[in-house]
Amino acid sequence: MTTLALAEKITGTPRGAVPAPAVAEAKRSLLNWMGVAVGAADHPMVDMVLEVAAAWGGQPQATVVGRGLKVDEHTAALVNGISSHIFDYDDTLLDTILHPSAPVWPALLAYGERHGLAGQPLLEAFVLGVEAEQRVAQVVYPSHYDRGWHITGSVGAFGAAAAVGWLMGLDARQMTYALGLAATQPVGLREMFGTHTKAFHPGKAAANGLQAAYLAGKGFNSSMRSIEAPRGFAHVTSEAPKLERLTQGWGESWQIMYNSYKPFPCGVVIHPANDAVVRLRGEQGVRAADVERLELSVHPLVLELTGKKEPRDGLEAKFSVYHCAAAGLIDGWVGLAQFKDQRVTAPDVIDLRRRVVATVDPSIAEDQIRARAVLRDGRVAELYVEHCLGSKDNPMTNEQLERKFGEAAAPVLGAAGARNLMDTIWQLGRARNLEAVMALTGPAVPR
Amino acid sequence: MTTLALAEKITGTPRGAVPAPAVAEAKRSLLNWMGVAVGAADHPMVDMVLEVAAAWGGQPQATVVGRGLKVDEHTAALVNGISSHIFDYDDTLLDTILHPSAPVWPALLAYGERHGLAGQPLLEAFVLGVEAEQRVAQVVYPSHYDRGWHITGSVGAFGAAAAVGWLMGLDARQMTYALGLAATQPVGLREMFGTHTKAFHPGKAAANGLQAAYLAGKGFNSSMRSIEAPRGFAHVTSEAPKLERLTQGWGESWQIMYNSYKPFPCGVVIHPANDAVVRLRGEQGVRAADVERLELSVHPLVLELTGKKEPRDGLEAKFSVYHCAAAGLIDGWVGLAQFKDQRVTAPDVIDLRRRVVATVDPSIAEDQIRARAVLRDGRVAELYVEHCLGSKDNPMTNEQLERKFGEAAAPVLGAAGARNLMDTIWQLGRARNLEAVMALTGPAVPR
Repeated sequence: MTTLALAEKITGTPRGAVPAPAVAEAKRSLLNWMGVAVGAADHPMVDMVLEVAAAWGGQPQATVVGRGLKVDEHTAALVNGISSHIFDYDDTLLDTILHPSAPVWPALLAYGERHGLAGQPLLEAFVLGVEAEQRVAQVVYPSHYDRGWHITGSVGAFGAAAAVGWLMGLDARQMTYALGLAATQPVGLREMFGTHTKAFHPGKAAANGLQAAYLAGKGFNSSMRSIEAPRGFAHVTSEAPKLERLTQGWGESWQIMYNSYKPFPCGVVIHPANDAVVRLRGEQGVRAADVERLELSVHPLVLELTGKKEPRDGLEAKFSVYHCAAAGLIDGWVGLAQFKDQRVTAPDVIDLRRRVVATVDPSIAEDQIRARAVLRDGRVAELYVEHCLGSKDNPMTNEQLERKFGEAAAPVLGAAGARNLMDTIWQLGRARNLEAVMALTGPAVPR
Repeated sequence: MTTLALAEKITGTPRGAVPAPAVAEAKRSLLNWMGVAVGAADHPMVDMVLEVAAAWGGQPQATVVGRGLKVDEHTAALVNGISSHIFDYDDTLLDTILHPSAPVWPALLAYGERHGLAGQPLLEAFVLGVEAEQRVAQVVYPSHYDRGWHITGSVGAFGAAAAVGWLMGLDARQMTYALGLAATQPVGLREMFGTHTKAFHPGKAAANGLQAAYLAGKGFNSSMRSIEAPRGFAHVTSEAPKLERLTQGWGESWQIMYNSYKPFPCGVVIHPANDAVVRLRGEQGVRAADVERLELSVHPLVLELTGKKEPRDGLEAKFSVYHCAAAGLIDGWVGLAQFKDQRVTAPDVIDLRRRVVATVDPSIAEDQIRARAVLRDGRVAELYVEHCLGSKDNPMTNEQLERKFGEAAAPVLGAAGARNLMDTIWQLGRARNLEAVMALTGPAVPR
């Protein structure tokens, strides 16, 4: 299987051929992506990138989401890709740990806005972009990731180049060149986790992929065998690549259908605990004030990765199952608010988290948990989570995605603005011009 | 040895501390770089990149050499980096096959022009940038290159970031972050050799390194251990990295002193043959019309890499020792003119190249050749080249670099313009403002 064959599959997909369920999942992906991008766009690292780019000039062509500001198309792809990865709250294709939206939507939205495209082709292009990047990810995973590549940045440009290139109408040879330009500039060392540069990775991948498509469209050439050649992407960045994944079974199913969304803004291993305490409170009426002790039987990874007993701030709290369980039981949710520094150091949360007892149980799967609240009056409330919210077998509903969107976007856009943008995204297939959609992504008063 | 230690060495070098011989070699590097960049700047691939960037806008801040055109600083770094690598005629650090100038000068010149810097600090910054990139190259070479990385693109951003960051006055922590941003985006698969994308590599490295320095200066952070960490640059892109090379013996000698320049625009294995025929003609008066047969005793690699007997165009002729020997003996030089398609297919060249006999001699070293011209009148002219021009033991003189510069730049700038720019580069240490220097790099009538 070859780069050219992949390019032919992409360019050979006519408009309208992507099936409705895949288009629907693209909308869910966009809603999820947009919420976390808008919500994080006031981060200082976004200011830094915008300042550097502003000094170079550039025409106001595409919107920086969450800012109400236009910059040139290339910079918009970079900045929006960064914003959407800051919260670590974006979507995930679990079999490769690829976050598919962060490198693709920023390139597509910038291109679509600048050229006044309609919504439907953008949704289809997104499905194809995700198909391309995820197939490349499957070729090189897991050795690529194990070696130290942050796969979202290192394969993301394939997705951006494929999606934008398809909209441009590149032919198969040009698409092969665009994929080659993506292949030759992987972005992202895992060593950068925990720094600003982690979020830079999908942003730069988006910008690189966009540039790759434009260059290929102008006639800029690269290798015809950039992925599979002995000194191509797959062999240089992984061992024993599964090249058959490039095109095998193309069109039988679409990778976007396996996309998953995080209900909680922290690592997935802690999600069963969050789900359990929210349900103990909501379904069984357990109140924090009545709880003597909260016992959790957890998968081994939970304590290995998130066993921090006394977190000092919001970042550390993401690695504390004790904090999450306590804050979630008190507040009824584990969202962005529960990771604010002041919530982590609040006396009621500290008091309860010290009464959380977590014990490893090897019979518990990664998406499972057993919770037992021993109340002060001697009663016991118990709950078994078989598949936690957001897992493969219990995906987030549209309503849950809307709640997440509102939580992230409303502080920036206001409740009405967030609702308006959300409704527009659900109707994106009917939007005539993306420019009007993007105008809804900023606050009433531009930052 | 650590990224931080390297950053401290760079930032701890005060202005004026780089010794005069290193500064002089920086000027030779610039003269060589500028000639090949100006000469190649009319290539169609440069048009493509400029068209894509122009559509995004950008202020006219820095000059595209050979064009008489200003674009934004970031784009200028990209485009000039591309131009300077098109001819495969730039400088080389032979122990890593790194072409040191192509990723560093474009970033430095763009930065220096935009900010109106003087010439002397730019020359010093170049020495430090080359020091940084070449030390990183030594850490990862040869496994990095063997695996398939085009080392000029994949480590070039370290040089650009270090050079520009030093001029900006980054502190050691910021410099560490800038090097981290360079580390996380290596550019360049060797699979791209023979395509436009090969020249794209140093250009993108220059642009990435420039951006990295700016971002770090704004406070954008990355890892403190981006090169040496288990999932850092060295371990992800090479085996058994020699981390001690990052700072070992810093300041005892400068890597730029080992820079070498190509006298002929083709692979180095063919250079002894070129040198031999030029000298047979110049020193012994051998004329092509008198030659019955030209016998060459060559290093084994010559026929392995450049044994093409009937090249059809200029590109193929670079892989034909027969063409080079014939054209060089007839014309008295093997330069850009000898690789024009019409020279390759000229009857006099074809006639003579069929009378060139090349034989492998295992006793001949890579920089050696034995040439024997059997003349029609029975006489024989012989020549033994012990160290060919441009090799470590027979470096190009300033006069030879000037000739090369004129050959490449005069067709674009005119003879007087080329001479003026050359004189200005020799005097760069006294230039007050780079803007005036860069104004000399374009044709009288802008393209």
